[in-house]
Amino acid sequence: MSSSNRVDLKPPYLILIGEEDDATYAKTGLGIVQWRPGQVAGQLRFPGCRVDLGVPDMTIDEAVQSGVGSLLIGVAPVGGTVPQQWWTLMENAASAGLDIVSGLHLKLADNPAVVAAARQSGARLIDVRTPPAGLPVGTGIKRIGNRVLTVGSDCAIGKKYTALALHEAMCNAGINATFRATGQTGIMIGGEGIPIDAVVADFIAGAAEVLSPDNDAGHWDVIEGQGSLFHPGYAGVSLGLLHGSQPDAFVVCHDATRTSVSGWEHYELPSVEECIEQHLSLGRRTNPEILCVGISVNTSELRADQRSAYLSELSANTGLPCVDPLIDGCGAIVSYIKQHIQDENHESSG
Amino acid sequence: MSSSNRVDLKPPYLILIGEEDDATYAKTGLGIVQWRPGQVAGQLRFPGCRVDLGVPDMTIDEAVQSGVGSLLIGVAPVGGTVPQQWWTLMENAASAGLDIVSGLHLKLADNPAVVAAARQSGARLIDVRTPPAGLPVGTGIKRIGNRVLTVGSDCAIGKKYTALALHEAMCNAGINATFRATGQTGIMIGGEGIPIDAVVADFIAGAAEVLSPDNDAGHWDVIEGQGSLFHPGYAGVSLGLLHGSQPDAFVVCHDATRTSVSGWEHYELPSVEECIEQHLSLGRRTNPEILCVGISVNTSELRADQRSAYLSELSANTGLPCVDPLIDGCGAIVSYIKQHIQDENHESSG
Repeated sequence: MSSSNRVDLKPPYLILIGEEDDATYAKTGLGIVQWRPGQVAGQLRFPGCRVDLGVPDMTIDEAVQSGVGSLLIGVAPVGGTVPQQWWTLMENAASAGLDIVSGLHLKLADNPAVVAAARQSGARLIDVRTPPAGLPVGTGIKRIGNRVLTVGSDCAIGKKYTALALHEAMCNAGINATFRATGQTGIMIGGEGIPIDAVVADFIAGAAEVLSPDNDAGHWDVIEGQGSLFHPGYAGVSLGLLHGSQPDAFVVCHDATRTSVSGWEHYELPSVEECIEQHLSLGRRTNPEILCVGISVNTSELRADQRSAYLSELSANTGLPCVDPLIDGCGAIVSYIKQHIQDENHESSG
Repeated sequence: MSSSNRVDLKPPYLILIGEEDDATYAKTGLGIVQWRPGQVAGQLRFPGCRVDLGVPDMTIDEAVQSGVGSLLIGVAPVGGTVPQQWWTLMENAASAGLDIVSGLHLKLADNPAVVAAARQSGARLIDVRTPPAGLPVGTGIKRIGNRVLTVGSDCAIGKKYTALALHEAMCNAGINATFRATGQTGIMIGGEGIPIDAVVADFIAGAAEVLSPDNDAGHWDVIEGQGSLFHPGYAGVSLGLLHGSQPDAFVVCHDATRTSVSGWEHYELPSVEECIEQHLSLGRRTNPEILCVGISVNTSELRADQRSAYLSELSANTGLPCVDPLIDGCGAIVSYIKQHIQDENHESSG
């Protein structure tokens, strides 16, 4: 369970935005600046670029001089093709010794000029979509420390955001906690992780075990969920991640107005209550003490006057803290965890 | 969903046994002769070989003359390394135009001489551990025809054997049925399939959909299960296969005396009843009509006088046919299916 089994990035970052003029496509860069401002040294923009991360503009030379560790591709280029100007820039950055970090579909390792430059300088080429080699099969053996996993009634329903917000709230409450990323954007924000949905099927649970290894007894890993147990395409990923994470606690992510699986509209979404029951039932296999500790709801499609009524009713029905993390943060969930889970031995103090 | 997405072998086969003297290591070859004798033209043995599949000994030249399609590696060499003599033989066979079919850990594509020989003749090099490229994400859309999946309370508990025996019993009963292989030995026996546990996590359910495509309304796919929903390492594979297969029916495979997960002894096995309930609960997500249609039990560790009492009691408790397929065959399960599932529309005739 060495950390060499995880993708592991070298900050601070110079974020390549290129000539992007639509912030939608720069969400990786924006996410890193939002959640990890201390890791970002600057941005690299070409003339005409209309997106601004609000950090200093910087050339490769300036980045090297100020001790930058990695050039990070912070945009998804439209159409998936990468302009030659970008490749030249990556080659120059690699020559100068910067790691290149990419979540592009095109592999860095397939560009001979960038590979040669990196080999000569010793820089690393890191494709965050590529899982590390040598992942083991899951053992199911209990690990020291505590774990909380964000799960969802659907995909793309706030599991990454909730994990980041929960991690922040735990840190603010003085809890020793680590964000554990399982997707490419999460890995770029968190600086390390494993792209769990790109792992070979036999090793999903094993990858989750490697991702959150033994730790101090009072420590919390906040693990970014993937997929959904109720998703007809991705449930296997979610179950392997649930089993391997052995979470002591989980938070259900939901959308107040979504009624069917996004993109798979022939499937209805489960209720929050069904979602809780299913995760308890399956999660108990590798952690009999698993608890649901809160519900994170995207309420953006509700009117302001409906929002608090919705959350109050859900909270009354489930007995759990219910928050919209963008508006309320995750402090209420941290309080619930503190009340109901004392340490990895689960001595209830509630 | 074209068949090019599946591994697809070219019979008849010449089976390479080499110098093996322990039948345990020749179980792939023995399995093919047991279940598909009509596909086997002969065996290729080196001097001193003490395993005999009971089919004609044949050289590469003789195989070519008699119309053999593939040289199939029927043994797992001790220690995983392949003697040079085997590589020379594979090169000769590929030169002569025979496909080479291997489940070895070493990849055929990594041997330049074999690759060159195959390229020159047009023969295919087929590693049955390697999933086909271009698998889709699962759609969850209902397909025409019927499907039965073998599932297990554990790994290595008879799922492949049960699927083969059930397929045979269905054919004997005049049902139009196809065996769908999901593991390397099953693929070699069945002649096609997808090694589901080697698929990238995001595509498990999609691979299962490709494996059992739309078919005639009265047709049955008999799908080989993998892993177990209760296995701390492999449950993700099993759930993806369950969702993607959308089985109308499933058979639970169990061992009468096993009490813990084999190799993971810190995990107790579920009861047969728990196993049925869990598969019904999760399987309903993609096929609300899913039914358990029987239990296949390995009773080899029971005394003869305990055996029938065990099966009778299990049958009384569950209301399902319970068989040891090695002794009883799967005819009772086929009868139950005929009584309870009329066609893909599930009009009960019971």
